[in-house]
Amino acid sequence: MTTRQFSAADHELDGLYAQLAEQSLQPLWELSGLLTEEPRTRAIPFRWPGRELRELGRRAGDLVPVDRGGDRRVLACCNPGLGGAPYAVPTLWAAVQHLRGNEVAPAHRHTPSALRFVVEGEGVWTVVDGDPLHMGAGDLILTPSWTFHEHHNPGDRPMIWLDVLDLPIVSALDAVFFEEGPDGQDGRTGSRSASERWFGGGPGLVPVDGPALPEHRSPLLAYRWADTDRALAALLDVTGSRYATLRYSDPVRGGDVMPTMRCEISRVPAGMATDTLRQTGGRVLCVLHGSGEIRIGARRFAAEPGDIFAVPSWTPWAVHAGTEIDVFSTSDAPVLEALGLMRTQNLTTGGNGGVTAQLTGAGE
Amino acid sequence: MTTRQFSAADHELDGLYAQLAEQSLQPLWELSGLLTEEPRTRAIPFRWPGRELRELGRRAGDLVPVDRGGDRRVLACCNPGLGGAPYAVPTLWAAVQHLRGNEVAPAHRHTPSALRFVVEGEGVWTVVDGDPLHMGAGDLILTPSWTFHEHHNPGDRPMIWLDVLDLPIVSALDAVFFEEGPDGQDGRTGSRSASERWFGGGPGLVPVDGPALPEHRSPLLAYRWADTDRALAALLDVTGSRYATLRYSDPVRGGDVMPTMRCEISRVPAGMATDTLRQTGGRVLCVLHGSGEIRIGARRFAAEPGDIFAVPSWTPWAVHAGTEIDVFSTSDAPVLEALGLMRTQNLTTGGNGGVTAQLTGAGE
Amino acid sequence: MTTRQFSAADHELDGLYAQLAEQSLQPLWELSGLLTEEPRTRAIPFRWPGRELRELGRRAGDLVPVDRGGDRRVLACCNPGLGGAPYAVPTLWAAVQHLRGNEVAPAHRHTPSALRFVVEGEGVWTVVDGDPLHMGAGDLILTPSWTFHEHHNPGDRPMIWLDVLDLPIVSALDAVFFEEGPDGQDGRTGSRSASERWFGGGPGLVPVDGPALPEHRSPLLAYRWADTDRALAALLDVTGSRYATLRYSDPVRGGDVMPTMRCEISRVPAGMATDTLRQTGGRVLCVLHGSGEIRIGARRFAAEPGDIFAVPSWTPWAVHAGTEIDVFSTSDAPVLEALGLMRTQNLTTGGNGGVTAQLTGAGE
Amino acid sequence: MTTRQFSAADHELDGLYAQLAEQSLQPLWELSGLLTEEPRTRAIPFRWPGRELRELGRRAGDLVPVDRGGDRRVLACCNPGLGGAPYAVPTLWAAVQHLRGNEVAPAHRHTPSALRFVVEGEGVWTVVDGDPLHMGAGDLILTPSWTFHEHHNPGDRPMIWLDVLDLPIVSALDAVFFEEGPDGQDGRTGSRSASERWFGGGPGLVPVDGPALPEHRSPLLAYRWADTDRALAALLDVTGSRYATLRYSDPVRGGDVMPTMRCEISRVPAGMATDTLRQTGGRVLCVLHGSGEIRIGARRFAAEPGDIFAVPSWTPWAVHAGTEIDVFSTSDAPVLEALGLMRTQNLTTGGNGGVTAQLTGAGE
Repeated sequence: MTTRQFSAADHELDGLYAQLAEQSLQPLWELSGLLTEEPRTRAIPFRWPGRELRELGRRAGDLVPVDRGGDRRVLACCNPGLGGAPYAVPTLWAAVQHLRGNEVAPAHRHTPSALRFVVEGEGVWTVVDGDPLHMGAGDLILTPSWTFHEHHNPGDRPMIWLDVLDLPIVSALDAVFFEEGPDGQDGRTGSRSASERWFGGGPGLVPVDGPALPEHRSPLLAYRWADTDRALAALLDVTGSRYATLRYSDPVRGGDVMPTMRCEISRVPAGMATDTLRQTGGRVLCVLHGSGEIRIGARRFAAEPGDIFAVPSWTPWAVHAGTEIDVFSTSDAPVLEALGLMRTQNLTTGGNGGVTAQLTGAGE
Repeated sequence: MTTRQFSAADHELDGLYAQLAEQSLQPLWELSGLLTEEPRTRAIPFRWPGRELRELGRRAGDLVPVDRGGDRRVLACCNPGLGGAPYAVPTLWAAVQHLRGNEVAPAHRHTPSALRFVVEGEGVWTVVDGDPLHMGAGDLILTPSWTFHEHHNPGDRPMIWLDVLDLPIVSALDAVFFEEGPDGQDGRTGSRSASERWFGGGPGLVPVDGPALPEHRSPLLAYRWADTDRALAALLDVTGSRYATLRYSDPVRGGDVMPTMRCEISRVPAGMATDTLRQTGGRVLCVLHGSGEIRIGARRFAAEPGDIFAVPSWTPWAVHAGTEIDVFSTSDAPVLEALGLMRTQNLTTGGNGGVTAQLTGAGE
Repeated sequence: MTTRQFSAADHELDGLYAQLAEQSLQPLWELSGLLTEEPRTRAIPFRWPGRELRELGRRAGDLVPVDRGGDRRVLACCNPGLGGAPYAVPTLWAAVQHLRGNEVAPAHRHTPSALRFVVEGEGVWTVVDGDPLHMGAGDLILTPSWTFHEHHNPGDRPMIWLDVLDLPIVSALDAVFFEEGPDGQDGRTGSRSASERWFGGGPGLVPVDGPALPEHRSPLLAYRWADTDRALAALLDVTGSRYATLRYSDPVRGGDVMPTMRCEISRVPAGMATDTLRQTGGRVLCVLHGSGEIRIGARRFAAEPGDIFAVPSWTPWAVHAGTEIDVFSTSDAPVLEALGLMRTQNLTTGGNGGVTAQLTGAGE
Repeated sequence: MTTRQFSAADHELDGLYAQLAEQSLQPLWELSGLLTEEPRTRAIPFRWPGRELRELGRRAGDLVPVDRGGDRRVLACCNPGLGGAPYAVPTLWAAVQHLRGNEVAPAHRHTPSALRFVVEGEGVWTVVDGDPLHMGAGDLILTPSWTFHEHHNPGDRPMIWLDVLDLPIVSALDAVFFEEGPDGQDGRTGSRSASERWFGGGPGLVPVDGPALPEHRSPLLAYRWADTDRALAALLDVTGSRYATLRYSDPVRGGDVMPTMRCEISRVPAGMATDTLRQTGGRVLCVLHGSGEIRIGARRFAAEPGDIFAVPSWTPWAVHAGTEIDVFSTSDAPVLEALGLMRTQNLTTGGNGGVTAQLTGAGE
């Protein structure tokens, strides 16, 4: 909808506009850019190189303490298109977190949901509502909305990982709550999490008379690389396709792991490429293993382990493998789907994401 | 989470910060206001008086044409706290639309969903995907996401009504699509809408072998005042309570009328008052009949027919009736609920909205 | 799967069979009729004439009291194919109940669900968990599983109506519970039911902060003829079809009125006919107004008000109107659908019931 | 509801009764046993000893061929209370199937759903709609409603397993369809099933762009003992309880594996016992490993591997371990729950099955 010219005498209009302003009103016909033919996101395709992230994380580790008050040593990816807002895409916060040996990032909770994805290293324990989750390379760890969480590094070696939060969404909805947690949830490290023992038994194996299931999100808080790796291999094997993508889901009820962020991982064998897809809403990619090229819109970025990428709304993207490459991905797709705003397009096949939608929904 | 001071040598930190900026990164520990104990909305409680809205609508009618290019003669309520953004609350666009006699606001469609609520007058027909919906006082009319809609005023008298759109939400998700429609959907005015004949038969009466149901929203596009009035009276009668609130819902599957906006109407008998409630997310009120006082946060506003009010997130509000008062209300509650972010509080009883949540859900 | 002959020595087989019998085992290969190409129901198409039902109800009224111990004056329709079982079709009990003036059928409850459909007369009040529901011609009244219910006839004139229960289903599942109720729930007759005042407001109008919704069934217990009649007329008008069928549904969440019985009503204008349909599961029809012919399988039955018909599983049926005819129908379709066993066929169009299925589901 | 005596003159009643019979009607007040205070099942608690089942299976293997026409070498467990009907409980068919080396049980499909549970041995491949599923001890294999299935034994050793079908339910609903399948689906044995490669990746790992999910049932057709064993051990570890019970579920959407049969497995450490439970509907138990005692109603049965037990509706049952014991269980619980007829009682704790119900539901 474009703005337009019209013919009333200027002084009359001026008078009307002054009155409108006085009454805190604005004339729609003078507003432009509200309704565009296609999404016009301010975010741009972008890459944050893993090598830089690791190095800057290490330097921050040397210079900045982590304790009550600061809470976290985190470097937020700021999409250059967003005018300084600390967001990778308009709906997602992405960042790297660095924890030195023998440090503890103290407990707190907030309504924004968070996930941690580990590219390398191991040894930190994230304690979620008292349940200790070991973090190792390739693992996906959830700290859902309003769960207390702290990070312990009982060893001597520093560790770094990717954080993604739905903070921009929760903030836009004026629904941010925050609370500092009780200190000293430590000491509970060292064993397999209760979450995994209850709900990580195997595909389709769920406890009878288990704890009450949390609303809106998965009761399983850790997805282990050994499982993911094996599942990717089996999937590649059965599809006979050029690549395979898994979704992380609630193992008891289906559906996404959290109500605002979909988590997926793709494996692309050497020399192969994913279809070129686009969809409404933003996406963050993180390379786990391998190297190649990631194309987003008109940009072609080299891709190495630890690289983080921003895929803006309605922007085509594809992963081209040099060596076999594993790419973790998170998007706001559950939000778009819940609100009836998801559009998907496969630019390689011309199709849309019908089957994808079908596989998503537990309670849809 | 508050920002903090720490003790590294300034020049080293300066160096780090420069490098971070160069890499489009920001240090979390220097960011403030991201995670607040409670929602800190910029929106303020506000009233747009009906008397002014009607008068300014009339003046705009005299000065500004409605035709292809401008499309709509609409005055948007701009919450003074939002720095000039044309939104009543951060998630909702609210506006009055004025259509002169014998005018047509031409057809278009957009992914933002819209609703129309009529305070006075009648005679305009909103044509939604070819189905003509007569508009009269007290009626709620839906123009859901991506439905073509145009407004016809075949009579000689101007008409004004309330528009509410989820535009800020769709915009924040970078999911706005817009398309101009085919002209000349007119001529189909004059009869009861197909939507009502299919799905408005009565409580719990639904067609077998009817048209395919639209995803995510009600197939019924008009909720008539005669029904609403009778239902409010019956509800007041059976509850024996100080006031009654109805929700408009999908008559076939339950659930909200649209995936982003909940619509409700309350009747408060003379001298009575609603409970004081607050919840996460924003709300817009519009007085249909009667007068009294509407309290939002620390403000007490007089309330007259046609008045529009902004209720910011987590701000207590209540309606105090002078004469018996009917107040229409729309909120972003379906979004907050779908994302697990809804918190409600009844400051009068101390309870929360458990039953409300229960009544909301379609298949829950 | 047919049985077969084979060649082992008889005496060895005899020995095996004796041992099997001793161990309470049977050889599948000697069982026939377990797995048939199509459903082979024992039920037959049948008609119970309304004229006879009224007359025999009246005579039973003269001869048989209704009080504690007998509880109900009910004549059960026994499908002649079912070997004396008192069921109209293998899954449904259908019967006429007769209540004389000034009689009370005392309170009890049971896990089988029941519905009442009134063909003529009025004045009895069915009290369901303390809520009095007036009964009049064309009304559908629900007494769901495990609700206390009693019938009061405060006037002088007798009244008769159709009862349908899912008793055979509940019985086959060994899930029948029964309890006598407290006497003297009477005296609460005379006003519009609370159920209707809460949930009968209008299409899509539901209370906020209403009573907790019952699981598995509609909170609305009475569907009034005035609404149904108007909805049928509107539906005929909008479809432009040869006939119209409405489903009675839960007005808050959608879905069938009770988890075991679907209720529908069809209007066929004079000279018109419904499509010829068949589906798995049983169905009971009852003519409300008008006359014509009802065809079930190879049978053609005259149809008059008050006639009850049995439609066995997978048997084609159609209604042919002489004068305009209204036919109420109840089936076990929700059971078949919940268990993935529903098959439908439209022998007139060749299609299947896709749209029907779509309209049914609340949380689907 | 008991029958009663009343006082009308006999000859008048006789006349009425004759007329009723002539009209295929029965007077409710002369019917007894329809509505009982509690379920009165005809089934009795029963044990079929594994030792006998193996021996009789072997003898049937010697005497009875398996080929087109007979199709299956199956011995059906006939509950002695059911008057000769070949059902273990009124809603479930349970049987042992014996397949000799180098035999093929030919392909067919039917609307009744079936499951196979293997107590010992391995080497048979069940081919379901062309997908070969290897069968080994402790595995649960599904052949859902209307899927073609055949059994191949390419090795030289015979194999025996438990079959459970919902045949009585489908039969009571007059919804049995049967079709012989194309021969020669063999030759596809030897690899891991496509079903497992698609959907057996790990807890919560589901394919994106996988095959369309089947309605009403799990897309995963084999649940492997290695997973189940590990999950039982983890569950025992985390609960700190006297025993652990897992449910087999749809790994993508949650919910039971098939719409009519719930599958569970319990591990009871040596010397421990399960709670004593009862619920509406029937259940079949099968001992996988270990020995002990199984109590059903007033009966105490010794329990050994391969033993099959019938648990009638509303009959208390418990497993008492001698050595550590693993007991597989299947019940009609999804049917009872879908129809709102499930009642559960824990006679050990006095509680009911609230949490159980919560864990069941996909979209609930």
